Amino acid sequence: MNAKTVLILLGLALATIFTLVCVLLTKGRAPSTCQHVPLKQEGTEDGQSLVFADLTPQELEQVVQYLQGNLGVQLVDASRAKPSDNCIASVDLQVPPKAEVLRFLDGGGARPPREALAVLYFGNQPDPNVTEYVVGPLPAPAYHRDVTVHKYGGKVPYHRRPVTGKEYMDINVLVQRELRKAPRFLAACCESDGTNLVILTTAPRGFKSGDRMTWFVLFHNVAGTGYYLTGQLEREFAADMLEVIRLKQPQADTVLGSMRPQQPPGSPGPLHFEPQGPRYSVRGNHITFQGWSIAFGMNPNSGPRLFDIRYRGERIVYELSLQEALALYGSNCPGGMSTRYMDGSFGIGRFAYELVRGLDCPYTATYVDQHYLAESETPKTNQNSLCIFEHDAALPLRRHFSDSQSLYYGGLRKNTLVIRTISTLINYDYIWDFMFHSNGAVEVRVHATGYISSSFLHGQGTDYGNRVGPHTLGTMHLHHMHYKVDLDVDGQLNSLETQDMEYELVKTPWSMQNTIERPYLRRERLEREDEAAFPLNGPMPRYLSFISPNPNKWGHPRSYRIQIVSFAGEHLPISSRMERSVSWGRYRLAVTRRKEEEPSSTSIYNQNDPWTPTVAFADFINNETISEEDLVAWISVGFLHVPHAEDIPNTVTVGNSVGFFLRPYNYFNEDPSVDSPDGVYFSSEQDPGACDANPLACLSPTAACAPHLPPFHFGGFLNLSLALPPGGL
Amino acid sequence: MNAKTVLILLGLALATIFTLVCVLLTKGRAPSTCQHVPLKQEGTEDGQSLVFADLTPQELEQVVQYLQGNLGVQLVDASRAKPSDNCIASVDLQVPPKAEVLRFLDGGGARPPREALAVLYFGNQPDPNVTEYVVGPLPAPAYHRDVTVHKYGGKVPYHRRPVTGKEYMDINVLVQRELRKAPRFLAACCESDGTNLVILTTAPRGFKSGDRMTWFVLFHNVAGTGYYLTGQLEREFAADMLEVIRLKQPQADTVLGSMRPQQPPGSPGPLHFEPQGPRYSVRGNHITFQGWSIAFGMNPNSGPRLFDIRYRGERIVYELSLQEALALYGSNCPGGMSTRYMDGSFGIGRFAYELVRGLDCPYTATYVDQHYLAESETPKTNQNSLCIFEHDAALPLRRHFSDSQSLYYGGLRKNTLVIRTISTLINYDYIWDFMFHSNGAVEVRVHATGYISSSFLHGQGTDYGNRVGPHTLGTMHLHHMHYKVDLDVDGQLNSLETQDMEYELVKTPWSMQNTIERPYLRRERLEREDEAAFPLNGPMPRYLSFISPNPNKWGHPRSYRIQIVSFAGEHLPISSRMERSVSWGRYRLAVTRRKEEEPSSTSIYNQNDPWTPTVAFADFINNETISEEDLVAWISVGFLHVPHAEDIPNTVTVGNSVGFFLRPYNYFNEDPSVDSPDGVYFSSEQDPGACDANPLACLSPTAACAPHLPPFHFGGFLNLSLALPPGGL
Repeated sequence: MNAKTVLILLGLALATIFTLVCVLLTKGRAPSTCQHVPLKQEGTEDGQSLVFADLTPQELEQVVQYLQGNLGVQLVDASRAKPSDNCIASVDLQVPPKAEVLRFLDGGGARPPREALAVLYFGNQPDPNVTEYVVGPLPAPAYHRDVTVHKYGGKVPYHRRPVTGKEYMDINVLVQRELRKAPRFLAACCESDGTNLVILTTAPRGFKSGDRMTWFVLFHNVAGTGYYLTGQLEREFAADMLEVIRLKQPQADTVLGSMRPQQPPGSPGPLHFEPQGPRYSVRGNHITFQGWSIAFGMNPNSGPRLFDIRYRGERIVYELSLQEALALYGSNCPGGMSTRYMDGSFGIGRFAYELVRGLDCPYTATYVDQHYLAESETPKTNQNSLCIFEHDAALPLRRHFSDSQSLYYGGLRKNTLVIRTISTLINYDYIWDFMFHSNGAVEVRVHATGYISSSFLHGQGTDYGNRVGPHTLGTMHLHHMHYKVDLDVDGQLNSLETQDMEYELVKTPWSMQNTIERPYLRRERLEREDEAAFPLNGPMPRYLSFISPNPNKWGHPRSYRIQIVSFAGEHLPISSRMERSVSWGRYRLAVTRRKEEEPSSTSIYNQNDPWTPTVAFADFINNETISEEDLVAWISVGFLHVPHAEDIPNTVTVGNSVGFFLRPYNYFNEDPSVDSPDGVYFSSEQDPGACDANPLACLSPTAACAPHLPPFHFGGFLNLSLALPPGGL
Repeated sequence: MNAKTVLILLGLALATIFTLVCVLLTKGRAPSTCQHVPLKQEGTEDGQSLVFADLTPQELEQVVQYLQGNLGVQLVDASRAKPSDNCIASVDLQVPPKAEVLRFLDGGGARPPREALAVLYFGNQPDPNVTEYVVGPLPAPAYHRDVTVHKYGGKVPYHRRPVTGKEYMDINVLVQRELRKAPRFLAACCESDGTNLVILTTAPRGFKSGDRMTWFVLFHNVAGTGYYLTGQLEREFAADMLEVIRLKQPQADTVLGSMRPQQPPGSPGPLHFEPQGPRYSVRGNHITFQGWSIAFGMNPNSGPRLFDIRYRGERIVYELSLQEALALYGSNCPGGMSTRYMDGSFGIGRFAYELVRGLDCPYTATYVDQHYLAESETPKTNQNSLCIFEHDAALPLRRHFSDSQSLYYGGLRKNTLVIRTISTLINYDYIWDFMFHSNGAVEVRVHATGYISSSFLHGQGTDYGNRVGPHTLGTMHLHHMHYKVDLDVDGQLNSLETQDMEYELVKTPWSMQNTIERPYLRRERLEREDEAAFPLNGPMPRYLSFISPNPNKWGHPRSYRIQIVSFAGEHLPISSRMERSVSWGRYRLAVTRRKEEEPSSTSIYNQNDPWTPTVAFADFINNETISEEDLVAWISVGFLHVPHAEDIPNTVTVGNSVGFFLRPYNYFNEDPSVDSPDGVYFSSEQDPGACDANPLACLSPTAACAPHLPPFHFGGFLNLSLALPPGGL
C-alpha cells in the first residue's frame, strides 16, 4: 500500500468521521426516555399508618396456627369442610379502638397491640354456631377472646353463616345428579343433557329465620359471555303444569353478550404520560400526594376502607369505608323476584380481583396486592388489585380570564389522586373510587358495570324490565351502596349545621314603594340523631356540614360539607319482614354519634337471616344529642336500573355513577390550591410563552421524551384457581 | 508526513469510525418522535354541515356593507354610537327553518339560502326602537326583511336593548366626574381620590318597563385579582345617613384573591399523549369521531350550539343549544340584592375568549377560532376559543372479569370526545362541555369557576352568605342554565314515555302462604305539554325517554333517555313581577312541540325589561298534544352557591358541575360499543401479553415515542383590545 493510497484512505476515513459526527449531532436531538424526578418526601411517615394495615400473609398464618393449636377442637380446612365440621371462615384485621389509636397517633401513646378477628364456623358441636374471636398479639398470638356475645348481644346461630364455596360445589353436584334424572325433558326444552347447564345462586334463602332453601337459576354455559338466561328449569314448575318452551343451544354466531371485539384494533387513544414520573408516593398502606396523607386497606367482606385521611397534616376523616352493596330485583321468575343480594356477605373485598393495566386503571398507575384469608387455612393474594394514580381530568380546577382593567389569566388543572379497586360479584363489577382534589375535597364514587342478571322471558315479564334477547328479560333492580364516613373536622368533636335558601319579600331600601324577592340564608343546627336522619327520597337541605367549634379567620366555624350525588330507587317497604336487615337503606344520610360498638351498618350474617338481622342499622338512630360529639355520617347512594338492550353485553359506566363529595366549607381561610406548585398565572404584561413566567410554556421541551411503559402482564386467571367464585359455579 | 504517521492516523481514524458507529447503533435505540397515523375518512361530509355554520368574517362584512347601503338611514359604528344614533348591534347566522334544512339534508332538496340576522338599534328615529332584519342571500345580499313584529308580536321598544360598551364607557366618565366632587369623603372612607375605583354594572335596572336606572358597584382596582368589594359608595346612602367605615387601600401583601402561585412549579402532572395522533377529525364546523358526526357553532349571545348530531349515520339530535345562564343574588347591599344577571343578554358566545392550551383544554387539543360581529361594524375573532379533544377518563366504559366457568376479561376504556368553550361573564367563568361517548350517549355539563361577586360586609350581611375577607361578604346566589334539546329519535316524530318503580305485595308463587314485596315497572305515555312540564324541585319519574314509533329488535320502542344531574336552588317566586322573564326556570324539564316560532326560551331584551318580557317561556306550554310530534326538551340545571372562604381566589369546579345525559334506551339492539376498535377481550386460554390477542399488550412498544408538543402560545390579551368587556370597565 503506497503512501498515496493510505492518504486517500485517510481522507475517506476523515470524511466518514465527519459524516458520522454530523449524523450523531442530528440524532442527538432525538427524544430521550423520560427521566423520573425523585419525589420530595412529604411529612414524616414513621409507620404510624401500619396501625390500620391489613394483616400480612405471615400474620394470617400466625393466626391460623394459633387457632389450630389453641381452640381445643378439630378444625377442617374450610375448602373441604362439610357443614358438620368446624372450620376457620375468615381472619382479618381487628381494627383497634379509635381512642387507643388516637392516643398513639396524636398523644404519643403506645402502639396498640396488633390483633386479628377470626370467624369460626362450629358445625361439629352440640349447638352449632358461628363464633368470632379476637386473637392477639401478633406476631406471636397468646390470647383469644370470644367477642360474639359482646358484639351481637347473643350467640350467632349457625344458619346465619354465609354459604361456603365447598357448599356451592356440593350443591352443584346435587343439581347435576338431579338433572340426569330428566334426560328427555332437558333434551326437549334445552337441547341439553344437563352437563352444559350452570347454576347461579340467589339470596335470601326462604321466608323465615332458619330457612336456607335456595333458588338456583340454570343457564346455558357459553364460554366468553355472561349468564344470560336462555333456559330455566324448576322442578316445582315442571311437576305442576309444564309449558315447555323449546330453546336451541346458543350457536357461536347468536351468542348474546359476547365481549369479543367485532372490529380490529386501530390507533391507540390518548394515554396518560408522566414525563418526570409519578408525583405521589405509596409506601406500604400509606399514600401521600400534594399535602394529602391516606392509609388504605381492604376488608374481605365489606371492601375498601381508608383511615386517617389528612390534608396538610390535619385529620379530616378518621374512617371512610364501604359498608354494603345491595342489589334488589323484580321479576316474574322465582329466582329473580326473590333476589336481594347483600354483596358484603359474599365478599366485596375478597372478590376485588387483579386490575387490567391500561383499561381498569391507567397503564402507568401503581398497582398493589391485597391479601386475605377466607374459607381456607391458607392466605390468598389478589395481585395488583388496588391501583393508585394521578388523573388529569382535562378540566380546570379553577380558572379566570380577566378581560377588564388588569388583564390576566390564572388557573390550575384538575389533577386528582385516585385510589381504585373493582369488585366482581358474580355478574356485576363495581368500580370503587376514592379521589383527592387539590382544593382539599374528597370525592367518593362508584360505577356499576359487568353484565346484568336476567330472567327467562315469559308472561308479563316486561312488567319487570325490558326484553334484551330472544328469551331474556333484563330484570329491573336497584343498586344501593352504603358508606361510613367518620369525619373529624378540626378535632373529634363536631356538630351538624344545615344551610338552605328561602326568599323574603322586602321593601327596596332605596325605593320604599317597591319590593324585591330576595334570597336569604337559613342556617340551622341539628341537635339530635332523629333530625339528622334524612329519608332516602325526602327533602334535604342543600348544604349540610360537619362543623368544628373553632372558627376560621373570618369567624365561621371550620367545616366540611357533604354533597351527595345519587339517583336512588325506592327503599324496600318498612312493612317487609326483611327490611330491618337493610334498614340503612331508609336514609340518604344519617348522622349518629360514633360508637365503638357500632362499627358497621350491617353484618355478613344478615344475608342468610334477614328476618332476624344480626345488625340492624335503624337501631343506631335513637335520638341521642349530636352537638359537639364524635359523629359519623352514614351515606347511601344508588340508582334504579331498568336494563335495556344496550346493557348487552355489559352495563356501561356512563350515567351509572353515584357518590358524594366532602368539601371544605370555611375550613380554610382561602382555597388551599393557591399553594399548588401547578398554579398558572400570567398578565398581559408578561410573555406567556416564556418558560419562567408560565410553566405551561415549559411543557413542550419537558415532555419531549418517550414514556417507558412496562410490558403488559396479567395473572388474574392464575390467582383465580386458588379462590372460590361467589355463589356461581 | 511519513507513511508510518499516515498509517497511525489511518488506524486512529478507523478506530474513531468504529466508535462512532457503535455510538450510533446504540443511539439508534433512542425513541423516535410519535408518528401520526392518518385517519380513515368517516362518512362523506360534502359540506352539508355548512348549512349550520356561523357567518364567516367575509359574510359578516357583506351584511354590514349591505345594511350601510340599503337601510336609507345614517348608521354610526356601534363602538362610537350614542343612544341617539342608529347603529348595527349585531349580525349573526339566521338558522334556516328546520323543514328546509331537512329537505336539503335528507330529501335531496336545494341548499337553503344563506341568511343573516341583523339587529339594529334605531336611536335616531322619531320612535326609537330595536329592529331585527333577515338579510340574504349571502354572499351577495339582495334583500332584507323586518322580522321584528313576526318574531315578537310587536315592535321592540328601545329601552329593552342591552347596554353597549360605549354606554358603559360614558357611564364610567360620568361616575369618575361625580367622584371628583367628593374628595374628602373618598379620602376618609377609602384612601382614594376616585381614580383607583372601578365600576361594575348590575341588572336589571329599575322596577318597571322603561326603567334603566342602574346600580354600579365601586371596587378598589387591584391589578391581578378579582373585584372583591373593599369599598362601596352609594350617593343615596351617603346623602341619607352616613356611617363611614374607613378602609385602607389594599396593600400588595393583603390583596384578597390573587391567583399568583405561592409555590415554584414542580414536576408536571400526567399529560395526555396521542401516540399516533388524534382520532377525530375537524373540518370547518364539522366533527367526526368513531361514528359520531356533529356540526358546531356559537351564537354570540346565547353561546354554544350543536346541530345534526348523528351516530352511525342516524340523527339523534337536530339542535342542542345553550339558551341562558341566570345568576340571581341575595345581599343586604343594593347592588347585590338587585342582581339577576341574564348572561345571554351580555353575550355568552362573544365573551368565550381564547383557551389556554394545557390548562383550559389538553395541550394537544384542537383549537378553533370563532368570529362574531357585535357592537361594531368590524368582525372580531376569538382565537382558539373552542377546543375539541379525545379524553381518557381513566375509567372503563364497561368491563367484566369472569371468575367462574369460562374465565375471561372483556372491557373498553371510556374515551370521550369533548367539545368545550369557556365564557367569562365579568367575574364568572362557565365551562361548557359537550361530550360524546362510545355507547352512543351524549353528555352535557357545565362547571362554574372564576371569582365570586361580593358585597361590602355590614350589618346582617351573613344572612346572605359568608364573610370571606376583612370587609367582604360572599353573596349567596343561584346559577341556573337552560338548554334546548331538539331530539329526533329515529325520525322527527317522537312521543314521551316515563318509567318508574313501585312495590307490589304478592303471594309467592311457590309458597302461597308467604308474600314478597316485589318491584315492578310503571310505564306511562305523557300526552300533553302540561303533563310534561316538571317543576324545578318537584318529583320526576326516574326514567323519561323520547321514543320513536319504531321498535328495536326486541320489540321496545327505540328511544333516548334524558337523565338530569342538577342541584338547583329555588326559582324566583312566580309572584315576582319579573318572573316571567326567566320562567324557563320554573321547570327542571319541559317538553313542548317544536315550533319555528319558538326558537329560544328567552331573549336578549329580557334583561333590561324583565317586567314585560320579550319572550316568556311559560307561554310555550299550552297543553298541546305531544304524541308523535316533533318535540323539544327544555332542560334546566343549576346549583345554589353560598360562597365560602375557599371561593377565594376562585370558585373551584369540584362539586360545582351540573348537566344531563342523553342515553340510548332500547335504541339499539345491543350496546354499540361492541363495535369499537378499542375493545379488549382475552380468555384464560390466551396469552394476554401477546400483542395480537390483546391490544393493551401493544401499548408498550407503540407508545415508546415522544409526543411533539407545539410551543405554547397565547394571544388572548391582544384580541381583547378589540373587544368590549361585559358591563365592567
